[in-house]
Amino acid sequence: MTASPDLGAFQLASPDLLRSTFRRHAAGVAVITARGASGPVGFTATSLTSVSAEPPLVSFGIGTGASSWPAVAEREHIGIHILGEHQSDLAATFARSGADRFGAPTAWREGPNGVPVLDDVLAWLVCRIVGRVPAGDHRIVLAEVVLGDSAGAGRPLLYHQGRFNGLRD
Amino acid sequence: MTASPDLGAFQLASPDLLRSTFRRHAAGVAVITARGASGPVGFTATSLTSVSAEPPLVSFGIGTGASSWPAVAEREHIGIHILGEHQSDLAATFARSGADRFGAPTAWREGPNGVPVLDDVLAWLVCRIVGRVPAGDHRIVLAEVVLGDSAGAGRPLLYHQGRFNGLRD
Repeated sequence: MTASPDLGAFQLASPDLLRSTFRRHAAGVAVITARGASGPVGFTATSLTSVSAEPPLVSFGIGTGASSWPAVAEREHIGIHILGEHQSDLAATFARSGADRFGAPTAWREGPNGVPVLDDVLAWLVCRIVGRVPAGDHRIVLAEVVLGDSAGAGRPLLYHQGRFNGLRD
Repeated sequence: MTASPDLGAFQLASPDLLRSTFRRHAAGVAVITARGASGPVGFTATSLTSVSAEPPLVSFGIGTGASSWPAVAEREHIGIHILGEHQSDLAATFARSGADRFGAPTAWREGPNGVPVLDDVLAWLVCRIVGRVPAGDHRIVLAEVVLGDSAGAGRPLLYHQGRFNGLRD
């Protein structure tokens, strides 16, 4: 902890400062899927963001130690799903190490290009990966929208301070 | 609109599909600042995300047509601020084209490396830009945390379907 007359107390960079800062931040919740070498893979992401309208591009982060990374590293297509408030169990399943993510009760179908598409989401997209940018032990994946549906029912699921939440209004 | 027996109705890629999908997504709200050629600049971002813990990296998107882009393109350091529910007016000011963003009532100080630091935020970081990745008409900016403070009071401001919101619980 350091102090300056102008800024008050502050901390120098550390993984702890990053973590404590992003605990203050709230994020929407998505599940990213892909066809793996031996079946569907997927993970819960709070880093999904829209990047550019023309061409329509999105991005998300993934650790190179994640169980889904080999498929995301090799496949051309991925699925992106925006989860609703009613899907906190699904979000927890896709965030838990070693969980049977595509067993019952996960409802899904095989979509275009072999991409697993989850049921009952607010919106889903099939995207084509156009970049995997190294960033520490993670990669920022850039993907172009191929097709999708944004007409699912419900309100968005949120994540804040280690737990799921919803919108107030 | 197309339909398949398995997937139901879906749309082919378009800026409208991207827009309608991300209208279903909720996001935390940040303001990014930098020292510009003729004074402080800044903009409201809903794309801020934590990328890697070691080294501590964050990312956000910015359009190359944005008024803050020349400063973000040239400066080494930027400020990142996580806004609270009490700061929706500030968020609107930093999103409005042509607004006097650093005039009263915006409370700010000059921080390390000349970076403008906003008052009363939940958390702020001064970061060093380490990459600007082209993505359509936007850039994904990668930045490493230098220092900051995550001990501000309040709960996070959210953005969803074109308006500001808060957490339910």
